[in-house]
Amino acid sequence: MNTFNHVTEKDLAYFRKLLPGRVFFGEDISSDYDHDEMTEYGHFMPEAVLQAQSTEEVSAVLKYCNERHIAVTPRGAGTGLCGGCVAIHGGIVLSTEKMKKVLEVDTRNMTATVEPGVLLMEFPKALEGTGLFYPPDPGEKTATMGGNAMTNAGGMRAVRYGVTRDYVLGMEVVLADGSVIELGGKTVKTSSGYSLIDLMIGSEGTLGFLTKLTVKLVPEPKVNLSLLMPFDDLDACIGAVPRVLSCGCDPTAVEFMEREVISCAETYLGKQFPDTSANAYLLVRLDGPNSDALQPAIDTLTDLALSLGAKDVLLADTDERKESIWNARGAFLEAIKGSTTTMDECDVVVPRDVIPEFVHKTVEIGKEAGVRIRSFGHAGDGNLHIYVCRDELPEAEWKEKVASVMEKLYAEARALNGEVSGEHGIGHAKKEFLRESVGEKQIALMRGIKAAFDPNGILNPGKVAGSPFDDR
Amino acid sequence: MNTFNHVTEKDLAYFRKLLPGRVFFGEDISSDYDHDEMTEYGHFMPEAVLQAQSTEEVSAVLKYCNERHIAVTPRGAGTGLCGGCVAIHGGIVLSTEKMKKVLEVDTRNMTATVEPGVLLMEFPKALEGTGLFYPPDPGEKTATMGGNAMTNAGGMRAVRYGVTRDYVLGMEVVLADGSVIELGGKTVKTSSGYSLIDLMIGSEGTLGFLTKLTVKLVPEPKVNLSLLMPFDDLDACIGAVPRVLSCGCDPTAVEFMEREVISCAETYLGKQFPDTSANAYLLVRLDGPNSDALQPAIDTLTDLALSLGAKDVLLADTDERKESIWNARGAFLEAIKGSTTTMDECDVVVPRDVIPEFVHKTVEIGKEAGVRIRSFGHAGDGNLHIYVCRDELPEAEWKEKVASVMEKLYAEARALNGEVSGEHGIGHAKKEFLRESVGEKQIALMRGIKAAFDPNGILNPGKVAGSPFDDR
Repeated sequence: MNTFNHVTEKDLAYFRKLLPGRVFFGEDISSDYDHDEMTEYGHFMPEAVLQAQSTEEVSAVLKYCNERHIAVTPRGAGTGLCGGCVAIHGGIVLSTEKMKKVLEVDTRNMTATVEPGVLLMEFPKALEGTGLFYPPDPGEKTATMGGNAMTNAGGMRAVRYGVTRDYVLGMEVVLADGSVIELGGKTVKTSSGYSLIDLMIGSEGTLGFLTKLTVKLVPEPKVNLSLLMPFDDLDACIGAVPRVLSCGCDPTAVEFMEREVISCAETYLGKQFPDTSANAYLLVRLDGPNSDALQPAIDTLTDLALSLGAKDVLLADTDERKESIWNARGAFLEAIKGSTTTMDECDVVVPRDVIPEFVHKTVEIGKEAGVRIRSFGHAGDGNLHIYVCRDELPEAEWKEKVASVMEKLYAEARALNGEVSGEHGIGHAKKEFLRESVGEKQIALMRGIKAAFDPNGILNPGKVAGSPFDDR
Repeated sequence: MNTFNHVTEKDLAYFRKLLPGRVFFGEDISSDYDHDEMTEYGHFMPEAVLQAQSTEEVSAVLKYCNERHIAVTPRGAGTGLCGGCVAIHGGIVLSTEKMKKVLEVDTRNMTATVEPGVLLMEFPKALEGTGLFYPPDPGEKTATMGGNAMTNAGGMRAVRYGVTRDYVLGMEVVLADGSVIELGGKTVKTSSGYSLIDLMIGSEGTLGFLTKLTVKLVPEPKVNLSLLMPFDDLDACIGAVPRVLSCGCDPTAVEFMEREVISCAETYLGKQFPDTSANAYLLVRLDGPNSDALQPAIDTLTDLALSLGAKDVLLADTDERKESIWNARGAFLEAIKGSTTTMDECDVVVPRDVIPEFVHKTVEIGKEAGVRIRSFGHAGDGNLHIYVCRDELPEAEWKEKVASVMEKLYAEARALNGEVSGEHGIGHAKKEFLRESVGEKQIALMRGIKAAFDPNGILNPGKVAGSPFDDR
């Protein structure tokens, strides 16, 4: 087990000189910093919170902490779901919340360079008038772009456009010893040694601290519309997914949603979903240069859906109609959260052809255990978000049941050749499930990599695969 | 410096028992194995060549060599351009040429699983009738798919579809100690710990031996056509590239070619190129569901090209016309090779907006040095292939000039924020240029990673970044 030094008065004095007015200690620290969006995984108050404003500051702080052996937990907006930005070993939280400049939009190379703290929801403003857009579209719009890169966030549009990894071209990263490296840049392909940038993406701040991010932009599609396909039967609904994906219509998003989750969202938003006729829905989004160009895809998908058991195909091509559907979809997580006392979640990804089988299993597992389970997800990616709700269960019973249910959900995903996380990451909450999924050999490889980047193990300790000197 | 044991009679006996009839030693080894496509980088005869047929065989061979400290150089079809598959430290070459089964085509998940030795040119046969295709399209069709994955090969269609990395979903890899790991699978997204699969892609056999590869397939576009745009002026030609990329037409390929390289290809193929009017050409390929759907893009691109100085826009929509253009393009490397005694090459990638600047510089550098330089490339990716031709230069003069020219080309690429290799890799020939490009810190990180995967350094020694115990 790694042990770290506590933050002393002397350390604080150093930090305060370096980051005047941006060092918080003890009672001055907001309780926001002791958790992410999943309070179920515990509250861990850091000893100090530092808000960096520049690469030089990050470098100086890391160099100091590396020499003094102080744990450093990088943090963006704190919207994660696995405790990745929570200081479980104490020490300092180093926050990117003051690093939110869009440094450059390069229309000729179709790239943008941003500081890590830029919020996903704020970034489109910087692209206005360029005709370019940034496709990654994670549900949580108040997340930072740096956090998205460090967790390889996915989102709704991944079916057509891919995930965050596919849009990260360059990074400036500060290593644990304070040295600054540049990975990638504005080039769009490379075979120049081991892909350190791909290793950094999704490493959740355990290998380095991201200080600049260069992303790829693409021409903005001029129009988009959505098709809502109600089915009586969940099987038929999800069974249609592989056919929708392979029919040549190049959908942007393929989401599935069940009546009971939509009801949660209706209650949460106080607004009604445009269709109430069915138990299960497939929602397909199309992007294109103009409406005419999308007509053949609309026709193909409509015929296909009806032939596969859809009761109808509703076209949403007005802003109002699109919003009423997608706002409901966007509210699912918060709606389920609001419908229960606390919950645990599972973000597995399975091969797309076994989604129906997996969804059935989740229902069975919930029934057996006597807990309420709600799920929705990116059917087009095989990525499911499954929420186990505590509701009114007493503490001891909940702890026992949720442990058993999560174990079964992950075991089922493994049996179907799935992976632990599609887009939320590992943090500290999913470490044991990662180990069970990839095995000791891969954990050892990951720890060997960790040691090469961060020999003292100060960066986000206890997360992802851990360090060579961790017991587990 | 790492030292390895030579292959003894005892070792041979072990190998022969393990791989009956597939072990070659001494004079039985074909001279093909002592080089790749670039004989300029020297001839290195391995002590033994072993042709594996299964994961179990690969595992047993590696375990043995790791214990005995024998160097192992993995090799596919030997079509590389940087000496990556050449046994520069002796020991054995472990070849995938007998591992060429397509194991599965899964139309529901749109994946295929192959052994590493399947040739790129043979793979499409396995997909016939499925309506699916594999987009990566490196120029060298006799390369293996395993080799493509281990060098992250690019190719013509990367502008629209991306490079090999974007299509690798799963790998079975044997590590240096003989253990077998599975990376990824049939899932299409993941945030499950460090991306070991992305580290393995492009690692050129230095981190593990690939024994199975699962790739993503996509619906096959029903039609394709090409637009050939002749320009009087190279500047105008290449200057048009960013506009072509951002006009919303989603081109599949954007290549530039100069008259003098086309002439080489005409001589090499004994066939004439369909246009002889211009000094420089931009070649743009479009894919789509049908001809009608492509018409708006044809119109947009034609107007755009004419407004940017193209003398004409020639539509190639018949097989004959397309072949006459693309066969010429496909023959460039061989044609330039055939036009000289020997040559060196440079595969740099630069941000797309500085391609004209870089091309000008290459011409200047060639003139200054008094050597003939030919170049062509993937303008849409900023990836240029530059060939320095020896022609009739005497040995000593050639060596001196080529060293100086290469140094200048790479320095110029670095100054323009380029990278050493767009798609050919590092091998042993480009190691020093990689070091100059990424710096000592990143070389040290790569060597730390190498040590985590291959502590004895037996796998493809002397390639890419080397091992921690290498001097340089």
